[in-house]
Amino acid sequence: MNDFAGLTAALLEFRDARDWRQFHSLRNLITSLNLEAAELLELTQWKSDAEIDALPAEAKSAEALRDECADILLYLLLIADTAGIDLAEAARAKLLKNAAKYPVDQAYGSRAKYTELGTATKSR
Amino acid sequence: MNDFAGLTAALLEFRDARDWRQFHSLRNLITSLNLEAAELLELTQWKSDAEIDALPAEAKSAEALRDECADILLYLLLIADTAGIDLAEAARAKLLKNAAKYPVDQAYGSRAKYTELGTATKSR
Amino acid sequence: MNDFAGLTAALLEFRDARDWRQFHSLRNLITSLNLEAAELLELTQWKSDAEIDALPAEAKSAEALRDECADILLYLLLIADTAGIDLAEAARAKLLKNAAKYPVDQAYGSRAKYTELGTATKSR
Amino acid sequence: MNDFAGLTAALLEFRDARDWRQFHSLRNLITSLNLEAAELLELTQWKSDAEIDALPAEAKSAEALRDECADILLYLLLIADTAGIDLAEAARAKLLKNAAKYPVDQAYGSRAKYTELGTATKSR
Repeated sequence: MNDFAGLTAALLEFRDARDWRQFHSLRNLITSLNLEAAELLELTQWKSDAEIDALPAEAKSAEALRDECADILLYLLLIADTAGIDLAEAARAKLLKNAAKYPVDQAYGSRAKYTELGTATKSR
Repeated sequence: MNDFAGLTAALLEFRDARDWRQFHSLRNLITSLNLEAAELLELTQWKSDAEIDALPAEAKSAEALRDECADILLYLLLIADTAGIDLAEAARAKLLKNAAKYPVDQAYGSRAKYTELGTATKSR
Repeated sequence: MNDFAGLTAALLEFRDARDWRQFHSLRNLITSLNLEAAELLELTQWKSDAEIDALPAEAKSAEALRDECADILLYLLLIADTAGIDLAEAARAKLLKNAAKYPVDQAYGSRAKYTELGTATKSR
Repeated sequence: MNDFAGLTAALLEFRDARDWRQFHSLRNLITSLNLEAAELLELTQWKSDAEIDALPAEAKSAEALRDECADILLYLLLIADTAGIDLAEAARAKLLKNAAKYPVDQAYGSRAKYTELGTATKSR
């Protein structure tokens, strides 16, 4: 039930019950996802790394984190549905691409971008 | 395999093979998710609504959309794992909250924010 | 010469020489400003606070900071010109608003948002 | 008075009266600028291009635009002050770089990125 297909079905039912498909252009959904990402970022504003790491242990902050992550996922599912993307499949494929860009022997313990690893063949 | 748990397992294996956990503070992951969201937004830059709607039908643009959506999902899974969030459960719970904030009879066919619907009891 | 009006004049000349006014809808300019803000944020990605504080002392990083700040300012000037905003005047007026929201005696040495200071009369 | 130096002086006085310098690390300022940029973007959410173009003509929306643009400028001035950037000079220099990347004869009436113009010598 709680896989991508199940969630998407519940989400589309929510959307269509409100006749909101008309507002969900790809542009609007992508803009809205960015706004939700910013709300997640706002939870870190003015905080030290240690304070941010402690957020999940505090009930109200944990709920805020959960809600913002959920909002991002919901818009991502709407974008995927609108653009005809199989999200789980796309993530698997991207992980393979990343594995090629960041070979273990070169990327181990390094923050360097792949363009600095000597494995890059094109700009991002 | 391609549910949230399966994807997260593959992702953590990718991360740990490279010893990257040390870089994945909640702050860094949230910042990175915002950067990936911006890369998705960049795909819409200077384009009309019609041009954006046409992106999924063009092979190279479709791949770019797929890759950026995948990157966002991957960071979201890392954030959820780090913060102890059950992402699918959080999305279900948020959908219920949204249903309360946007009752069908008041939200039908409307873009109004819930704070304008007369159902708001708290700030977002 | 290097005040807001002088910069805006140089910028509009640059724009009109290329016949770019047609692309500079308020939406496009605001989206582009967000993308430039993200490029500035990217300069902090994966870095510690100390490493970020050290960026201005390193020539190449300093130039990157300078360029991204410039890009943000340029889009801000275009938005202000398009929306009929006197940017310097708007900043002065906002500073007065902020002074009212954050009275010195309550805000001194505090990161609290004005909504937590007991001075709030409306949501942000 | 309302040039960059005058505004920065007023802003630093506002900051120091509240003892806020301690919170204004480069990271915090850059994060905050991104959040303000998102608030500006939020003013376009769910709106058509025509509705966005009409925002400046409506008093309340015009004020919101003005305030968000002001917030972005204020953070940009703080970043510039912290990083030792002469903002007006940086904008002039960037405009020259952009002029080289987008020669009039190739960029006239075109939305193409400079990397597609055949003038690119390096990635952005």
